[in-house]
Amino acid sequence: MFLLQHLDQTVKKIKSQAANLITLINLGFGAMAILLVLQGELRTSLLLITIAAVFDRLDGMVARKTNTTSELGKQLDSLSDIISFGVAPAILLYQGVLFTFGMPGAFFAIIFIACGAIRLARFNVTDTHGFFVGLPITVAGLLLTLSFLLIDIIPDYQFMFITLILAFLMIGTFKIRKV
Amino acid sequence: MFLLQHLDQTVKKIKSQAANLITLINLGFGAMAILLVLQGELRTSLLLITIAAVFDRLDGMVARKTNTTSELGKQLDSLSDIISFGVAPAILLYQGVLFTFGMPGAFFAIIFIACGAIRLARFNVTDTHGFFVGLPITVAGLLLTLSFLLIDIIPDYQFMFITLILAFLMIGTFKIRKV
Repeated sequence: MFLLQHLDQTVKKIKSQAANLITLINLGFGAMAILLVLQGELRTSLLLITIAAVFDRLDGMVARKTNTTSELGKQLDSLSDIISFGVAPAILLYQGVLFTFGMPGAFFAIIFIACGAIRLARFNVTDTHGFFVGLPITVAGLLLTLSFLLIDIIPDYQFMFITLILAFLMIGTFKIRKV
Repeated sequence: MFLLQHLDQTVKKIKSQAANLITLINLGFGAMAILLVLQGELRTSLLLITIAAVFDRLDGMVARKTNTTSELGKQLDSLSDIISFGVAPAILLYQGVLFTFGMPGAFFAIIFIACGAIRLARFNVTDTHGFFVGLPITVAGLLLTLSFLLIDIIPDYQFMFITLILAFLMIGTFKIRKV
């Protein structure tokens, strides 16, 4: 009887933390993607950022389904997003192509991360229902990551524009309907 | 007259955003520290993380002095902190020594970042006055960064313990009085 009660409580606890665990998996993939860039494994890094995006989509769904959306979960989600879709894509593009431009290349990568942080901070304090204001960092980060596949196709300098445009779209004030 | 009014408004605007600008400088130094690790400039990276810590201390002071503490500022501060004192120190230590342990080394670096995120998320949703719960990420990140200076002095495996202990201290539930 005691054992059953204990088991029941453990299941409830896991269920309530399921969404946060998925968020931490997103963070883990993002952080691993950064470490892979250090090791020169740029294509594997790209793959991990893409997987992180899948988990990012999952956590909100699980939180709503298990009715466990929480303020803590929202905060953890933002902190994971700045790593997986702010820092990781910027570092990947920097190491892939932007570094060839020296300081300006570094500056563009940092601008992307800073705009991502501003977007997330604003999102957390604004009550928006049914729409996003500015391009979500997950979308911007994923697009920057996928642009890596164009490195042998388009001229290098165009990546500075891609980085800057995606950065500014994040802090734009236009509205996008949620899907 | 119009010009004076305009100037007055601009000064007010700058003043209200001064704290957030300092927070973004903290983020900029943290992001640059990560890029420097990619370039193998580990000691310069250490220096930049230390400078980021000074700016992190400054922004709260300015916000309180100009009476412009805001929820947005608090969010931006957390997002900058996870970059400058979570990701940057972990990447620095990984590239400096932890990489020699392969996957376990990467795992420890990621655990440090994850615990930093949990600490920050909890801090943002908990109302604590006059004390911190768990070791603040700025302190843990700065200590991890400074431990880099011991690389030629203590055995390599000890850095795994240092990383893990600092990570767990961040998510501990003990209280530290604010100074």
